[in-house]
Amino acid sequence: RLRAVDSGTALKLRGSEILKYGIPDRGLDARLYENHVLCYDQAKKTPIWVAEHITKADLKGPANRRNCNFNIDPTLDPFFTSHVSDYKGSGWSRGHMAPAGDNKYSQDAMEETFYYTNIVPQDVNNNGGFWNRLEMYCRDLTDKFSEVRVISGPLMLPVQEEEGTKKFVKYEVIGNSSVAVPTHLFKVIAAESPQTPGSPVAVGAFIVPNKPIEGSAQLVEYEVKLEELEKSAGIYFLPQLPASKRVDLCSVDSCKLIPQETLELFFITRKLENAETLQRLESAWKDLDRRSLIPDDYMISIYKKKKESLMNK
Amino acid sequence: RLRAVDSGTALKLRGSEILKYGIPDRGLDARLYENHVLCYDQAKKTPIWVAEHITKADLKGPANRRNCNFNIDPTLDPFFTSHVSDYKGSGWSRGHMAPAGDNKYSQDAMEETFYYTNIVPQDVNNNGGFWNRLEMYCRDLTDKFSEVRVISGPLMLPVQEEEGTKKFVKYEVIGNSSVAVPTHLFKVIAAESPQTPGSPVAVGAFIVPNKPIEGSAQLVEYEVKLEELEKSAGIYFLPQLPASKRVDLCSVDSCKLIPQETLELFFITRKLENAETLQRLESAWKDLDRRSLIPDDYMISIYKKKKESLMNK
Ligand SMILES: [Mg+2]
Ligand SMILES: [Mg+2]
Repeated sequence: RLRAVDSGTALKLRGSEILKYGIPDRGLDARLYENHVLCYDQAKKTPIWVAEHITKADLKGPANRRNCNFNIDPTLDPFFTSHVSDYKGSGWSRGHMAPAGDNKYSQDAMEETFYYTNIVPQDVNNNGGFWNRLEMYCRDLTDKFSEVRVISGPLMLPVQEEEGTKKFVKYEVIGNSSVAVPTHLFKVIAAESPQTPGSPVAVGAFIVPNKPIEGSAQLVEYEVKLEELEKSAGIYFLPQLPASKRVDLCSVDSCKLIPQETLELFFITRKLENAETLQRLESAWKDLDRRSLIPDDYMISIYKKKKESLMNK
Repeated sequence: RLRAVDSGTALKLRGSEILKYGIPDRGLDARLYENHVLCYDQAKKTPIWVAEHITKADLKGPANRRNCNFNIDPTLDPFFTSHVSDYKGSGWSRGHMAPAGDNKYSQDAMEETFYYTNIVPQDVNNNGGFWNRLEMYCRDLTDKFSEVRVISGPLMLPVQEEEGTKKFVKYEVIGNSSVAVPTHLFKVIAAESPQTPGSPVAVGAFIVPNKPIEGSAQLVEYEVKLEELEKSAGIYFLPQLPASKRVDLCSVDSCKLIPQETLELFFITRKLENAETLQRLESAWKDLDRRSLIPDDYMISIYKKKKESLMNK
């Protein structure tokens, strides 16, 4: 039935005659990096999908995102790359698909996530808020499952016009490279503990609009059937994992994200820890008041120690 | 430099661990048919590119498009196909990328061009008018070049909003399968007579908006640099033909399309030839008056012979 795959000699000969100057080249099916694999969209100048494998071991280590810079991917044909200038002043932030934070074990691996091949134009609130909480959720899954696989990427979904019944896909493109701003982002999560034999793989598929999302939003609101995502994306994400071996992630796990508030406390803690001047320390401390957040004892102790050390400088 | 291609063992091992359940599957890079090769877009439910090789021999023979029907491609995964119901009532015609008329030599080959894998939603006037003339031009090139290669496909190009400076891509999607309606169509033509040694390949790239185009329009108005098309499409169309071996098609050929009028005379001649009742014959004959076209002696003789034979029935 799949003659295109299992084609005879005559077809193959005719095929090479038609394609005398090569198969039109859309780029590699899979690009390998230290700790992620991706497929790049040479037309949209963003990734199509980015795959990761997260274990507890990857999440510990000395790598620091403050030592990373966004860079053109040296392994990508420069003709099809996006540039810092495309994003600058566009109003869109540079959103990682493979998050930097999944690569604490290796500075090299973390730096590779700052290549533009791993970046899409992302709403800045979404990037630092809901999507960030979703990334943390993926990391926290390693408490429960020894292996967590995640595939992330952009989507262009149609909407019905307010007047009439026609459906349209509409998306912005930014910069001279016309980098495509996705309407949505997706994540496919496949979590398992293979040391428990015969246990199914917990699979969840999520589609998140590329816009600000309220702090109260929960992950289950964005869960979709994997098949629905696959039909829209035109991709089978787990081609070698039969449906019979899958179980719905949110039925074996709560799919609960950490509260937005906890995330903000986390950010302020990081600011306190990284403050290099007294002024910056006090400004970070005042963020708590500004956002009506209550510091815990740990934060208070960080603040006090830092203040002492900065005053003694 | 291209580490993603020329990657070491460690990367490959990590890669297979990350992709334990397979490389996310976007479908085949190239699908082989009797007389065309294509790559299908499982997300947009249209082809991405369709490649052909036209010689004089392909253009003669008994194959007839009246014996062809649009069909679901039996070699395509049904999960990603478009359907007749997607197009019905959409206002868009079913536009062939590999034209039926390039396959006169074989009914089988012609029928395969009616598979939905070879079809995009196309403006009906464009389909029967300018695009048709462009297809005829490709066939007529075989008078001058022994081998003509053509790659055709849909494009989504951005436009600047009337107010402001932002650029957007916007396209309709039709039917339950959300088949993407291209904003533009492209053709890459590569013509040569390889029996003349050392002669370069004449290459032309054309981008045509998917809308009605005036009968007076000429091909050169739609010519673009191949590189410009390649950057938009994200595809190198002739990866194994170095730029140094190319010459601009429209500098070695006039790139002149047959006049719209000639096309209309051709259609009416076909109607006269195929008329099965006197009424249809007379209606086709009146088309000439209606469009202020003047029949030549050949048409007049066809009309007279047909009239006689239908009256004697
Ligand atoms: Mg981010
Ligand atoms: Mg047509």
